[in-house]
Amino acid sequence: MIKANDPTLKSWIDVAEDSDFPIQNIPFGIMKKGKNHRVVTIIGNQVIDLFELNKRGYFKPMVVPPAVLRNEYLNDFISLGKNKTGNIRERISDLFKKGSRKLKNNEKDRKAILNDVSKVELTMPVKVGDYTDFYSSRDHATNVGKMFRDPENALLPNWLHLPVGYHGRASSIVVSGTPIRRPKGQQIPADSKQPVYGPCKLLDFEMEVAFVIGKSTGLGETIHMKNAEDHIFGLTLFNDWSARDIQKWEYVPLGPFLGKNFGSSISPWIVTLEALEPFRTSSPKQTDPKPLPYLKNTSKRNYDIDLYVDIIPENGKGKTVCKTNFKYMYWNMCQQLVHHTVNGCNVNVGDMCASGTISGPERGSFGSMLEISWRGSMPVDMPDGSQRKFINDHDTVVMRGFGEKKGVRIGFGEVSGKILPAK
Amino acid sequence: MIKANDPTLKSWIDVAEDSDFPIQNIPFGIMKKGKNHRVVTIIGNQVIDLFELNKRGYFKPMVVPPAVLRNEYLNDFISLGKNKTGNIRERISDLFKKGSRKLKNNEKDRKAILNDVSKVELTMPVKVGDYTDFYSSRDHATNVGKMFRDPENALLPNWLHLPVGYHGRASSIVVSGTPIRRPKGQQIPADSKQPVYGPCKLLDFEMEVAFVIGKSTGLGETIHMKNAEDHIFGLTLFNDWSARDIQKWEYVPLGPFLGKNFGSSISPWIVTLEALEPFRTSSPKQTDPKPLPYLKNTSKRNYDIDLYVDIIPENGKGKTVCKTNFKYMYWNMCQQLVHHTVNGCNVNVGDMCASGTISGPERGSFGSMLEISWRGSMPVDMPDGSQRKFINDHDTVVMRGFGEKKGVRIGFGEVSGKILPAK
Repeated sequence: MIKANDPTLKSWIDVAEDSDFPIQNIPFGIMKKGKNHRVVTIIGNQVIDLFELNKRGYFKPMVVPPAVLRNEYLNDFISLGKNKTGNIRERISDLFKKGSRKLKNNEKDRKAILNDVSKVELTMPVKVGDYTDFYSSRDHATNVGKMFRDPENALLPNWLHLPVGYHGRASSIVVSGTPIRRPKGQQIPADSKQPVYGPCKLLDFEMEVAFVIGKSTGLGETIHMKNAEDHIFGLTLFNDWSARDIQKWEYVPLGPFLGKNFGSSISPWIVTLEALEPFRTSSPKQTDPKPLPYLKNTSKRNYDIDLYVDIIPENGKGKTVCKTNFKYMYWNMCQQLVHHTVNGCNVNVGDMCASGTISGPERGSFGSMLEISWRGSMPVDMPDGSQRKFINDHDTVVMRGFGEKKGVRIGFGEVSGKILPAK
Repeated sequence: MIKANDPTLKSWIDVAEDSDFPIQNIPFGIMKKGKNHRVVTIIGNQVIDLFELNKRGYFKPMVVPPAVLRNEYLNDFISLGKNKTGNIRERISDLFKKGSRKLKNNEKDRKAILNDVSKVELTMPVKVGDYTDFYSSRDHATNVGKMFRDPENALLPNWLHLPVGYHGRASSIVVSGTPIRRPKGQQIPADSKQPVYGPCKLLDFEMEVAFVIGKSTGLGETIHMKNAEDHIFGLTLFNDWSARDIQKWEYVPLGPFLGKNFGSSISPWIVTLEALEPFRTSSPKQTDPKPLPYLKNTSKRNYDIDLYVDIIPENGKGKTVCKTNFKYMYWNMCQQLVHHTVNGCNVNVGDMCASGTISGPERGSFGSMLEISWRGSMPVDMPDGSQRKFINDHDTVVMRGFGEKKGVRIGFGEVSGKILPAK
C-alpha cells in the first residue's frame, strides 16, 4: 500500500509545495495524443503515460492489455478492478520515488513517458453511462427551503429519511476548460402567467464532488453499506451549472431538466478513494430521525476536503466566493450508493454520482450564487468594482479542492468553465 | 421509396394477416448469434440477418462496413444516416417482394439469411446513452392532477406551455422478455411521519411510446421544428414500470428516482418513422394557450397507432386492461425534441425519449393502473375471478401497438415483462 499520509515519501520529479499532485496522490486521467488517447497519471507537473510505461516493460510481471491504456476513457482501466489498479498505483509510486533509478536514469524512456502538463490536452476521463445528482448537504437544502418554501419548515418531510436524488444528463458532462454557452429557455416573469423565451438571466454554479462507479452491479442487485466502498473508484470535482429561472418554471412536478442539462463540468483527474484515506472524518450524527437500518452508518465515511470557488471576470481579477468542505455532507457517498441500488437499480463502471451543492453553515461556505447572494439580495463585490448576483457572460468559474495533512496535499486540480453569451 | 401504404406490395415470405411485420414495415433490431450479434429485420415470422445479406453481396453496389452489421447494438447502423438506412430498407423490400427471385431461388443463401423468429434471441436494439421521459398526454396529466392535487386545477401552470420531461435511468432499460424484480424501498404509510422499508405494494405499468435519436447534435446546438424529424430514427413501445408508493414519498422536490429506475422494458424492434408515414394524423390544436414560437406546430405530427396493454396472471387467462392510441399526445415528438435542445443540450444516436403515459379520454383508454383503478378505488375484474388494483407478483404485462390502413398493418411486436417477487 502507498502510504498516502507518509510525508517522508518524495518523488524524484519536482513537486511544488502547493501542488495537488505529490507522489502520494497518483490520480488517473486521459490525455489526447494525436488521434489516440492514453491513460495517464500526474506527479507535480509531469503527466505520466501509462501506455508507454506498460509498453516499455515497467509494469512487469503484471500484465495489462495495451488497449486498456490506449483508450479514450478510463472505463476499461477501472474495470480491471481495484486490486489491479491499486497495484499499478503502487508500481508507479515505486518507479517515481526518490532513490528509484531505473526509469530516472533512462532518458529515452523518460522522454517517452513524461509530458509537461502545460503541453498536454486532458480529455473526459470517463464515459459516463448514467449520471445521478444527489441533494445531500443539509445546509444547502435548508437554504433553498428557506428561500423558496417555509423558513420554519425548510426541509421537506423526506429529506432526513433518504438521500434525495434524481437523474441528470450524462451527454453534457464536459471536462474542465470546455466553455459553456449561456442557455436559452422559458422563464416566468414575476406576477405573470405567460412565460417568455430568452437567455437565462440567473446562471449559477453548484460546487459539488462526484464519485465514479468502480464496480458494476446487475439489475435487481443491491449494494450494502459494508461493501459500498468497493464500488467507488474515485472522486472528481463537479460544477453542476444551473439556470435558476429556467429551473424554477419547469421543475414541478418532475424535477430539474433544461435548467441543468445544458452542461456540467468536471475536473480531469479521478482521485482514488485510497489516496483520500487520510482525510476520512466522522460523519454527522443521524439520530433525529434515525435512518432506516439499510442506511445506517457506523463509521467515518465523510472526507475532510477543502473546496474553493473563484469567479474570474474577463481580463479582471478573480475572487474566491466560496470556501466550503466536503465533510459538510449529511448523507455520505456510501449511503447515496446503497439507497440508489436498494430497489435493484443497476450501476455501471464510469457512472457518476454527484453530491449536490455542498454548503457549510455560513454564507462564505455556501456552494452556489443562489445562496451566496441570497436570491440576488446580497450581491458580491468583485475586485474590479463590479458586483455579482449570478454569473455574467465571459466570467470563468474555477473550482479547486484538496485535503492536507502533515504537509501532504492531495488535490483534484481545477475544474474551470467560461460562460459564453447566448447565441 | 417503399410505399408503406401500398396494399398490393406483398412478400414471397408468408405474412399472416394479423402480423405486425409485412414487407412494408422492415423495422430494425439485434439478434444474438453465438457470441456475436447481428443487425436484423423481420418479415412475417422470418428474421433476416443483414450481416449475411451484406456478406453475400445482396447490398451491392452499396458499401456497408461489416462491423456495423455484426454489432451488439444498432447505434453504428443508425449513424450511417437516414439516406443509407433508407436505401437498405428499399433494397430489402426489393429482394423480398413477390416476384423477386434472386434470393428466393438460392437455398443456401436463404438458409444463412433467414431465421425463424421462434428460434432467435432478440436483444436490446440500441445502446441508450441518455433516456428522457416526457409527460405529454393531457388526459394522463389531468388524471394525476385530479387524484393527487386539485380536481379544479388539475394541470400545473407550466404544463400547457412546455412538454414537461425529466431524465430517467438508461442502464435499467431492458428488452422484452426480461423479468422485472419487484423493487424494495421506502414508503410512507398513510397518516404516518415515519417511513417503512419493504417491497413496493403499488407496482404499475405505464404504456408509452419512445423515439430513438437518429442524428446527434453538439453541445450548444438547438434542433428546430423544421428539422426535428431528421433526428428521429424510429419508435419502440416502452413500459415505464413504476412503483407508486416509492415514487410518492421520494419525488418531492427533484422528481421520480427509485420509483422508476428499477427497470423499463422496450419492444425489440425499432420501427422507422418512414414506415409509420401512413399513420400521420393531425395534432391537437394548441390555442389556449398558444405555445411560444419555438414550439409552434403547423403540421400533422401525431401518429394514429393503436396501443394495447394486457395483464396475464401466471397460468391464467389474460385481460386487455387498456386500449389507447399514440395520437392522444398533446405535445408531439418534434416538440419534445425541440424543447429538449432549446437550451443547447446535446443528443446522441441511440438516446431514447419516451412519451410519458398515454391516456385517452375514457377509463378504458387510460395508460396506467393508477388511472384505470383510480388509485385502487375501482379494481379490474380478471377472467379468473381475481381483481387487480395494481400488478401482482408473477403477472406478465404485455403491450402491443400497430397502425392499420388499407389492410396494411405496421406494428411493433410486443413488449412483455413478468414481475418476480421481491428478494
